[in-house]
Parts: sequence; structure tokens; C-alpha cells
Amino acid sequence: MSKRYIDLNCDMGESFGVYKLGMDEEVIKLISSANVACGFHGGDPNVMDRTVAMAKEYGVGIGVHMGFPDLLGFGRRNMDIAREDLMNLIIYQIGALDAFCRKHGTVIQHVKPHGNMNNMADTDEEMAENIVDAILAVLPDVPIFVKPNSQLHRVAEAKGLPFVLELFPDRAYNNDLTLVSRRQPGAVVKDPEVAAERAVRMVTEGRVTSITGDTLEVRGETICVHGDTPTALEIVRRIREKFDRQGIVVAPISQWWKSNKRCSC
Amino acid sequence: MSKRYIDLNCDMGESFGVYKLGMDEEVIKLISSANVACGFHGGDPNVMDRTVAMAKEYGVGIGVHMGFPDLLGFGRRNMDIAREDLMNLIIYQIGALDAFCRKHGTVIQHVKPHGNMNNMADTDEEMAENIVDAILAVLPDVPIFVKPNSQLHRVAEAKGLPFVLELFPDRAYNNDLTLVSRRQPGAVVKDPEVAAERAVRMVTEGRVTSITGDTLEVRGETICVHGDTPTALEIVRRIREKFDRQGIVVAPISQWWKSNKRCSC
Amino acid sequence: MSKRYIDLNCDMGESFGVYKLGMDEEVIKLISSANVACGFHGGDPNVMDRTVAMAKEYGVGIGVHMGFPDLLGFGRRNMDIAREDLMNLIIYQIGALDAFCRKHGTVIQHVKPHGNMNNMADTDEEMAENIVDAILAVLPDVPIFVKPNSQLHRVAEAKGLPFVLELFPDRAYNNDLTLVSRRQPGAVVKDPEVAAERAVRMVTEGRVTSITGDTLEVRGETICVHGDTPTALEIVRRIREKFDRQGIVVAPISQWWKSNKRCSC
Amino acid sequence: MSKRYIDLNCDMGESFGVYKLGMDEEVIKLISSANVACGFHGGDPNVMDRTVAMAKEYGVGIGVHMGFPDLLGFGRRNMDIAREDLMNLIIYQIGALDAFCRKHGTVIQHVKPHGNMNNMADTDEEMAENIVDAILAVLPDVPIFVKPNSQLHRVAEAKGLPFVLELFPDRAYNNDLTLVSRRQPGAVVKDPEVAAERAVRMVTEGRVTSITGDTLEVRGETICVHGDTPTALEIVRRIREKFDRQGIVVAPISQWWKSNKRCSC
Repeated sequence: MSKRYIDLNCDMGESFGVYKLGMDEEVIKLISSANVACGFHGGDPNVMDRTVAMAKEYGVGIGVHMGFPDLLGFGRRNMDIAREDLMNLIIYQIGALDAFCRKHGTVIQHVKPHGNMNNMADTDEEMAENIVDAILAVLPDVPIFVKPNSQLHRVAEAKGLPFVLELFPDRAYNNDLTLVSRRQPGAVVKDPEVAAERAVRMVTEGRVTSITGDTLEVRGETICVHGDTPTALEIVRRIREKFDRQGIVVAPISQWWKSNKRCSC
Repeated sequence: MSKRYIDLNCDMGESFGVYKLGMDEEVIKLISSANVACGFHGGDPNVMDRTVAMAKEYGVGIGVHMGFPDLLGFGRRNMDIAREDLMNLIIYQIGALDAFCRKHGTVIQHVKPHGNMNNMADTDEEMAENIVDAILAVLPDVPIFVKPNSQLHRVAEAKGLPFVLELFPDRAYNNDLTLVSRRQPGAVVKDPEVAAERAVRMVTEGRVTSITGDTLEVRGETICVHGDTPTALEIVRRIREKFDRQGIVVAPISQWWKSNKRCSC
Repeated sequence: MSKRYIDLNCDMGESFGVYKLGMDEEVIKLISSANVACGFHGGDPNVMDRTVAMAKEYGVGIGVHMGFPDLLGFGRRNMDIAREDLMNLIIYQIGALDAFCRKHGTVIQHVKPHGNMNNMADTDEEMAENIVDAILAVLPDVPIFVKPNSQLHRVAEAKGLPFVLELFPDRAYNNDLTLVSRRQPGAVVKDPEVAAERAVRMVTEGRVTSITGDTLEVRGETICVHGDTPTALEIVRRIREKFDRQGIVVAPISQWWKSNKRCSC
Repeated sequence: MSKRYIDLNCDMGESFGVYKLGMDEEVIKLISSANVACGFHGGDPNVMDRTVAMAKEYGVGIGVHMGFPDLLGFGRRNMDIAREDLMNLIIYQIGALDAFCRKHGTVIQHVKPHGNMNNMADTDEEMAENIVDAILAVLPDVPIFVKPNSQLHRVAEAKGLPFVLELFPDRAYNNDLTLVSRRQPGAVVKDPEVAAERAVRMVTEGRVTSITGDTLEVRGETICVHGDTPTALEIVRRIREKFDRQGIVVAPISQWWKSNKRCSC
């Protein structure tokens, strides 16, 4: 019987100067892919350098976690950014992270927009196109992590950018597979045991219980745990324990996933 | 008889957002190498994108013009930056520019520190080492433009980073080949005709008259014209005219210069 | 017969570091109120200092021109800023400008939001409330410049913040007195003579011709000339000439305007 | 017998956006004066608002803790800033904090430069003059906290700016009353009990034991506890306990200290 693989991703490298955020040194040992901040919404050159070094040390895949140019708002405020501006902000951040990968003898594995750049691209087709076009301009073979059925998902597929579908065990789902807004009660699954159970069921059965109690079919190749919930480290630990018991292998997508990039020949 | 080649470099891409600086569209047609700001002391992602596009269009060599993280001071204030901080700031800026080169199907030709990062490295050996080590970490075969006899020159040579010597026809020289401080009268040669004459003599005779009237031997492969003097465009025009008449070919160093990198085998 | 007074306002102090914007030294001599950038969308401490000094020298009223925290976008991108964030950003900028007024022995005359903070407050009632509440918290007696019939106008009136109505001779009007969007042809009146004629008619007759050719009734106490159109300086010159000929006195609102603040006793 | 008074100051409000620094909510209850960051080296408008509100609630004196424009370096890198630039950066920060004081119905009690702006002014007379002149321009009656015998101390005295001398129980002293450099072993007194004992002896006897074991005479009206040492909260607690037992009253200088401002009449 063949092994079952899954990728486990978390945000990393969001500290800035004297300001520390997250428990990167602990979390990095448990995940398989790191979304690395690039200095716009968080992170700085030193933090990027150390995060890439750590990721390489632990065999963790490195992703560009590009954000809006808004350190004060941590990239979590909607911004109305023109196509040229957005594309170039993304290309700039990709290049910056790539240089640290080169320094450490490694490469960029994936790309994932941060915060409200990602949220806006759930429904804003133009923003999704700008994001995808920016990546295609410099990293056409590198996959993007997308929420299933988001505009970002649809545009990546339409334009031939490889994409990896994400599963969100620490978030409640609506029946149309969108995530329940954080403004609604019950949107975040904080109990580590419950979140871990949901993760296992998503991977082994391809199912999750929605906010209304219905059973939904879900599919995905990477599990996202939001690093900014207080129980994040515990959620990741439980998920790893349960996966180990079930024989599910947590590994970077670069090691097992086959690109869905459409042939353009 | 073999042709004589020389490179002609100028700072470019220093505009930011709505703020315009310099006459890049005019100057780019006359030079052979552009030092491109990378968003720290000046420049922004859109400006970098357009500058790289322009440089490629006109066959101009593209250089990383990395600066201190000080937009308000335009990188022209001394900053006491620790080794790790400085190295990573430089690697970050190199990566950012490299991404735009990749987008436009071109590559980085050279590296040149901006403003007071460069000035401090004239005499500050530690800063010179940090700059050279940062470049060696990601672009070990790309030459750095250096002032002859500066610490940056000596350290690049000692560490095996390729380097290109600069000539400064619009600046007065002391007898020890250092530049006369801008605070002294006569430090800047503003008359376009005089500056152009000096440029020609530097290239054809390898000589320049010092501030005290002595004749000095100088050598160099690239001529720097400071873009922020009001007569810069006129100086560049005159230099080109005189070079054309003398049969001196202005071309990017990448087209004719042989790396002085020492073999490390 | 009593004199007719009008205020003439223009944006000022938008330069930043080495970057120069506008022709402040010329324009300041012709206007009666200056909207001074406070370092967020443009301007810096040195520029604020010099602008306040100039305004005092020429007897020009000084206004807080607070903007979004977005130097790269010059405050001209919509941002979704929470109430607390926006209020405190505004209070911070008010305080910063106030210190320069104190240094030069003068005071803040008025307040006017910049760019998209102002545009969003045309129709976004919540943003209008946050702006007005921020001003009420620290400058409850200082008038705000508002577009007639905007949400900002309505909220200022409802909350008892003094307000001054603006007239826009260099912009086309819709029949409902809103301004024609800049994306539509004919939105900006660039011909200095035409703009100046419109200004005179607005002040003397209280009328303007709309984009559809209809005659509209307009009222206002301050005329806004947008400093970023190439003909701005010429428009201001023509307006002053025509006003002089008609005996209309251009003077800061602080010298002739009576506050419409409602008594809260 | 008259009561003995002392002021106890600590840095506050250094958080930025999502980034938290220090234990302000605990420390504020134990001190009498807060040095509030103003958004340049740390702090942001929301943090300033909350810090001023807290200080007012607990009867703590509010000080401008102005820093270099270097968030990434937390104001702890030497910068070579021209006189005009430095003066205006300081005036800007003073104004910003003043607006939040006005909002909360309180006033600025004192001024204290942060980090390397303060360190440089120990020995750099020109920097000390620029700092003092900036404060004199807008807050001529507000005292500055100074290290005894620093250039900042001497210049404040010479120019007639009120000053308050600081005592440093958590730092070792050289025999000339300067502080032992942090690069030397034993420079920081981390043991809370030892630091507290030193504080009591400084206040009751006016003496401290130097790094060489000699007894030095010291005087001062405010005790500084550096908030960034891990034991800071415990040091402050012990100091308060000991002072309470000795009948020494910890109170803001505004409540008991008489200005040493020289009459300029």
C-alpha cells in the first residue's frame, strides 16, 4: 500500500528588528513548508536570512509570503493597489527572498499571498490576475497555495500557474466551501484536539463538517495552520501526532507533489 | 590598431512614487552602465521595473546601487550598521533588482554602493569587508565598481571579488589620488567642457591634473558622472562627442572587460 | 458697499527629502490658505518647518492636510482603516504640524483631509465620522474644508464641527453638485482662462455651468486649486487678476469668516 | 521631618502595530514618569494614545521619548544627522505626543532622548546643542532628563533649559561618574535586590560603589530603570518596596521638583 503524503504550512519570519512575533524556532520543527514574510507587512532582511537558514536546516520548503506595503497594519488592511504597483511589489519581494535562498544554497518552493492580499483575491478577480501574472513573470513553475474555489484558484488554473489547494482545519467552513468570516462566532477552531481531528479526517476521508453540521467533500495537498492563534503550536503538535499514528507522512510538496501545470506546448 | 573601450556609468532609477528625480530618459541614451536604486535610499518597485526595461532597450549594463535604509536622508547620512544588518540589507536589495532583471530577460552586470555607504567604505575597512562579503555570498562573479585605493578596492582585491576601477572627471583629485572633499572649494568640476576634456585625457593618456596643478597617473575602466549635478546631462553629452571623435568606444564593461577575479583553485 | 471676501486654498509642503514637488515658493504668494502635508502621504519635518515659516511670512492660513500612511502611493490609494487607527493617525499629524506652528508663533487655521482620505469621506459615512471625531478630540473650534453635500459635510454639521464649503473652478460639476470623476473626459478644467472665469462667476453670481450645460447654484467660502495640474500656477494667477479687477478680496478665512459652529450650551 | 521625594522613570509605549514590547500594563503601576516613544524608533499613534491614557489614569508623568528615524534599528544605531534635520525630527515628535496629551486633558511633563540619540549626546556637543535648541523652540519650560556630566547636561544648563539629573541603579559607574560601557563585563546590574539596594543608597546617602569598589558621591532627582532588561519589572518592584519602607515617596517630578531654569530677565 502506498504512503499518504500531506504538506503542513505555517507563516514564519514575521518578526521585525527588536520586535519578536511567533515561536518560529519551535514551529519550524513540526511543519513541512514555511511562508516567509518579505519585509513589507512583516519580516526584515536579518529575519529572512535566519528563517531561510532554519528552513533549510530542518528540510522545510520555503515560500514567498508577500504582503501589502503596510508594516503598521501588518498587511491586514484592504488596499486598492493598481495592477502595475501590485505586480512590481510582488516581484520585488520574490527577488528579495530568492537572494537569501541563493545565499543558503536552496530555492523557493512555493508562493502564498499574505493577509488581506490573499483575502481580497478570494473574490476580486482583477487582484487575483495581478498576483498570478506577477508570479508568472519571474517564477512560472513555482506553485501558489490557494483556497479552493477562490478567484485566485480559478485564475491560477486558467493562466497555467501551478497551484496547491489548501485545507484549513482550524477554520469553520460554510456549505459552499468558503471559510466562515472571522467576524462570526465559531469561525476559528481553537481547541487543538478538535482542529487536529478535523485535519486527519480531511486527509484520510476528504470530508469536513460545516458550520451548519453538514458533511462537505474537501480536497487539498497542504494544511494551513494559522500561526497567530495562541494554540497554534499545540494544534500543530497534535496534528503531527495523529498523522504519525495514521501513517500519514508530512513532507514539503516539493518532495512528492506533481505539478498540475498545464502544458503550453 | 585595436579599439579603445571605456564604460560610462551614471546613477538611475532614483525616483519614488509621485516624486521624480533625474533625467533618466535622456541620460540612459548616452551611458553604457546604469547604477539602479533598489528602494532603500531611493527608487521603488515600479521605478526599478521601468529602469531595467529602459536599460535593456538601450543596451545599458545594469548595476545594483544599494543604499542605506534611509529614504528621508537619501542614503547620504552616515549610519553605524552592524555587520549582519548591512550584509543582509545588501543581499535583500540585490535580490529585489535581480527579480526585475529576470522579468526582462537580462542579468545584473555590476554592483556599486550608493552615497555614504560608498563614502564610508573609502576608509572604513570593516564596512568594506561587510559589503564585499555580502556580494560574494550571492553574486561572487559580478564586479564591483570601486574608487582606486579605497578600502573597498583593497578588500575586493584581497577577497577575490572582481572589481572595476572608476575615474571621476567631474571631481578634483588630491595628489594621493583621493577625491577632494565636497566641502572644499573646487571639489566639483561643473564646466561640461572641462570635465569632458579631463575624461578624454584620463582615457587616452592615463593622466589628470590634481588640485595643486600636479600631473597624476590614473587608471580605470569606467567613468562616473554624478547625476545630481545640474550640468550632468551636458557633461555626458560632451564626453560622448569627444570620445566619438577620438574613436573611443563607450560600451558596458560586460562587453569588453575581462574579469580580474583571482582563481581560487 | 461692503467688500466681498473669498479664501483661495492650495496644497503645499508635499516635498520629501531630496524629492521636490510643486512650486510652493511661487504659489504661496498668490493664495490665502495652505493645506500642509504632515509626513504621511508627503512632506517631512524640514519641509513642514519651511512651509509654516513661508505661510507665516506671506500671511497665509495654515491647514493640516492629513493623509493615509502611504508615502509610496502619495495617499491616493483607498485604504480600509479601522476607526481607532484612523483617528489616531489624524491626531498624530495634527500634533506634528501644530508643533511647527508653535515654533513659528502661529496657529492652525483649518483642517482638510488629503487625497483618498477625502475622496472616501465623500460617500463613506463611517470614515467621515472618524475624521470629524478625531478633529473634535483636539481642535474642536478649527474648521474643516468640505465638499458641499459630501458625507464629510453632513457629519461635520451634525456633530458641530465648524466647516467651510469649497468651490472647485478647475473641476467639472455633475447636476447633483458632485464633481465629475477624473476618469471621465472633461473632468478637469485645464484652461487657466476658463477656470478663472468659472471662479469669478462662482463667487459673484453663485452659479456654475454643469458638465451637461445646465446652470447650477453653488455656494462656498474657499476656492480650491489643485496644485498638481501643470497649469495650476497660471490658474491661480488668472483668478487673482480677475478677483482684483472685480474688487473681490482674497484673504484667509481666519480674517473674515464667522464660525458656523453650533452652540453646545 | 520633611518627606523625601524621588521620581522613577521607565521607557513605555514602544510597541508597534501587531508587535508588542515590554510589560507596560504592569510597569506603569509602579513608576512615576513614563518616557513615551513617538513613532520614529518605536511606538505608533494607537500605542501613544493608549500609553498617554494609562499614564493619566495612574498619575504618571508623561515624557517625550524622541528617537532617530530608524524603526528597523530601534533608534539604537548612530546616525549622522544634520542640525536642521535633527531639530525638526524632534519638534515633530514633540508635537505628535502633545496632541495625545491634549486629547486626554493632560500635558507633557518632561523630555528624554532615546537610545543612541541620547548616547551620542553624552559626548557630542553639537548633537546636545541641537537637541536642546529643538526643545527650547517649542517647550522651553519643560525639563529634560540628563545623565550628570554629559554634554547634554552641560548644554541644557548653559542654554537655560530646565534639566533633571538621572540616577542609574541598574548600571555600573566608573570613577568619573560616567556609566561603564555595556560592552564591558559587569556593566549591567541584573540582580533585582542589588539594584534596589543601590537605588536606596543613592537616594538616602547620595553615594554609590563604583566598578572599582570606590565610593562615589552621586545626586539626582529621577531614577532610571531600563525597561529592556529581563528583570526590569522585578527591579522596579523591589525599589518600590524598599522606598516605601524608608518613607521615600515616589512621585512625578511635576509634583515636587522645582525648576532649575535660570531667569532670563
